[in-house]
Amino acid sequence: MRQIQGGITAPEGFKAAGVHCGIKKNRPDLALIYSEVPAVSYAMFTTNKVKAAPVQVSIRKIRKMRAQAIVVNSGNANACTGQRGLRDAERMAELAAELLGINKEEVLVASTGIIGKPLPMEKIERGIREAVGALSPQGAHQAAEAILTTDRAVKEIAVETDIPKRGKGKVRIAGMIKGSGMISPNLATMLCFITTDACIAEDALKEAMRSAINKSFNQISVDGDMSTNDSVFILANGLARNKRIKTWHKKKKRKIEDENFRYFQQALDYICISLAKMVVRDGEGATKLIEVKVEGAPFPKDARRVAKAVANSLLVKTAIAGASPNWGRVIAALGAAHTKIKPHKVDVYIGGLPVVKGGEGTDIDEKSLREILKKDEVEINIQLNQGDNKTTFWGCDLTEEYVGINKRYV
Amino acid sequence: MRQIQGGITAPEGFKAAGVHCGIKKNRPDLALIYSEVPAVSYAMFTTNKVKAAPVQVSIRKIRKMRAQAIVVNSGNANACTGQRGLRDAERMAELAAELLGINKEEVLVASTGIIGKPLPMEKIERGIREAVGALSPQGAHQAAEAILTTDRAVKEIAVETDIPKRGKGKVRIAGMIKGSGMISPNLATMLCFITTDACIAEDALKEAMRSAINKSFNQISVDGDMSTNDSVFILANGLARNKRIKTWHKKKKRKIEDENFRYFQQALDYICISLAKMVVRDGEGATKLIEVKVEGAPFPKDARRVAKAVANSLLVKTAIAGASPNWGRVIAALGAAHTKIKPHKVDVYIGGLPVVKGGEGTDIDEKSLREILKKDEVEINIQLNQGDNKTTFWGCDLTEEYVGINKRYV
Repeated sequence: MRQIQGGITAPEGFKAAGVHCGIKKNRPDLALIYSEVPAVSYAMFTTNKVKAAPVQVSIRKIRKMRAQAIVVNSGNANACTGQRGLRDAERMAELAAELLGINKEEVLVASTGIIGKPLPMEKIERGIREAVGALSPQGAHQAAEAILTTDRAVKEIAVETDIPKRGKGKVRIAGMIKGSGMISPNLATMLCFITTDACIAEDALKEAMRSAINKSFNQISVDGDMSTNDSVFILANGLARNKRIKTWHKKKKRKIEDENFRYFQQALDYICISLAKMVVRDGEGATKLIEVKVEGAPFPKDARRVAKAVANSLLVKTAIAGASPNWGRVIAALGAAHTKIKPHKVDVYIGGLPVVKGGEGTDIDEKSLREILKKDEVEINIQLNQGDNKTTFWGCDLTEEYVGINKRYV
Repeated sequence: MRQIQGGITAPEGFKAAGVHCGIKKNRPDLALIYSEVPAVSYAMFTTNKVKAAPVQVSIRKIRKMRAQAIVVNSGNANACTGQRGLRDAERMAELAAELLGINKEEVLVASTGIIGKPLPMEKIERGIREAVGALSPQGAHQAAEAILTTDRAVKEIAVETDIPKRGKGKVRIAGMIKGSGMISPNLATMLCFITTDACIAEDALKEAMRSAINKSFNQISVDGDMSTNDSVFILANGLARNKRIKTWHKKKKRKIEDENFRYFQQALDYICISLAKMVVRDGEGATKLIEVKVEGAPFPKDARRVAKAVANSLLVKTAIAGASPNWGRVIAALGAAHTKIKPHKVDVYIGGLPVVKGGEGTDIDEKSLREILKKDEVEINIQLNQGDNKTTFWGCDLTEEYVGINKRYV
């Protein structure tokens, strides 16, 4: 597997466009992703009970696991907009389908931005017309720009991986993502679009995607808030013409694991984890990436609860923002997680420096710890010494800038 | 019931002192509370798995439900300090008992401040000696000052209530509290000391206290963090010489409810809710009190989860800090709570203004909403329309100042 140039149009047969239709004042606000042929597709959505109209529409459409285009707008979430919102979301798909000459049931939709305002449909329709005209194999970057809200930077990535078994082949996977506030599992509050030219079976795509999401987007947090619009989409159009990837295949009448699936999974994990970390790094007002590794947990859920509690603790986040060697906040946060861990067994390392051994503070040199905390990546290792389960979770620091950004009406 | 002058020494037979022993640079840092006679006592402690040494010591001592004094220091939490921490906490109680000529098992201890540093015992011993000498019926305010850390203000209150049944009487209840950061259920991260001269049975005191805590300290949040030291203590010394309050008494061989218990409960609720609201209002960097009322929930836990999710949402907190009419964040936060509520039934009011009806945004006047959000108390009413359960939860806004305070090493 190697990283390659380009964003979501790096895989064969994908085109994209990003245009400005006027929902936002100056910046691009409408993106279109298109595959030359219908693609095997999967998507996962916010677990928020309040689901935006485009989420409701896409949930219904994705059941068929087949899609050929996605229309996305930023600047307006089309959430809490009732029947009108649903009609507007359907209309976005319908118009794009009409102009592209494809089945409207195979056009997905996504929106991000402010909640509770109806979509300015005239502008959006104009935007869709323009985007269809602008579709291009070089359009990835413009599309990645058009989905942003408070993000500071475009976030995209592409890789190529060998599919070495059962007839050699190469496939490409690429993704773009937006999200910088309202980021918390499950999912991290964001829109993510992944394209691949791999030929892959429906159930294999679903399994790979669920597994990748659990290692990436469900393991990050900026502020603990979950949006009404979170969505992750993947389109696999098969144009790499590789032997179809399955979770298993038959050999001499026996089911055996498809090794190619493992290659695909590895590349997809890489794409998802990379994008997830980009989101945290671009967290509103964030200056530092915090990686929390928890090991030795009695159960997987304990590992996750501890990691999440530490990464989400405002006191941990502010201490790291200020490079303040207040490790007590880490131990207080992990103790507050709903687990049955025994505190007297816990060791904590910050940037490799042991700050807690067997539940007690070590006599660390505060100056060294302060230096570690000044770096732009801080690793917190928590060894619970109570089992074999582990996890990694990513968060970011909390600064005055986060508050400043969110005091405004966005 | 009426509010009366004075703090924790307002009830009969209580003395207090607050002195400076040198844990903190300039401000008082050691408090002593003393009852002339042993008091029926109860306490509740942090549910954090990591419990500070004084919490561990007081948990053991309170089992007897009898205490006569409490020693408290601020500036150092005596948490994550191992065996030495436990010995130090025991020693605080022992020395105070010796000097006061009382049973050391009836002296409770509490600490608040930085985690992971051993207590400066010489200073503390000197402080205890001084505090014993300084004990006075006018010492409440000094004691309330000596328990503070990042608090901006002393927080104390006292009331007198009639105990009108079965031989008239009056009892007094008073309390003092510290806490401004690390505030989250259960308990809110804080130290709270309540005194009363009521004569009350052990089980009645326990029941009243548990009930009051659930309506107050477990219903507030500043930052969602839970400390290793949270404790709420109550001492009831009986010197009001009222007929002993019970949960029930016998009349003509039948068990009937003791109406006096209700009067006591009402006064205790008032004390606890008042103190809890003082803590939130004094939340680190807070400029506004947010009251979240949830009604119409299918189950009590749904009401609580929704209220807590809204009060804890950083996006709601920052929107209110900025008086930004972004009500969509309220609906996003309530949808993210782990409940089975149906979003399309939900109404939301902010300061009486309907912003969501049946899950959809109303066309509110943003200017009026902005005016409401500029006030220093903001009420959010959430009508779920899905049952009969309700709750009230208090939080505060999140400002740049909170971040600034917590970036420092305290």
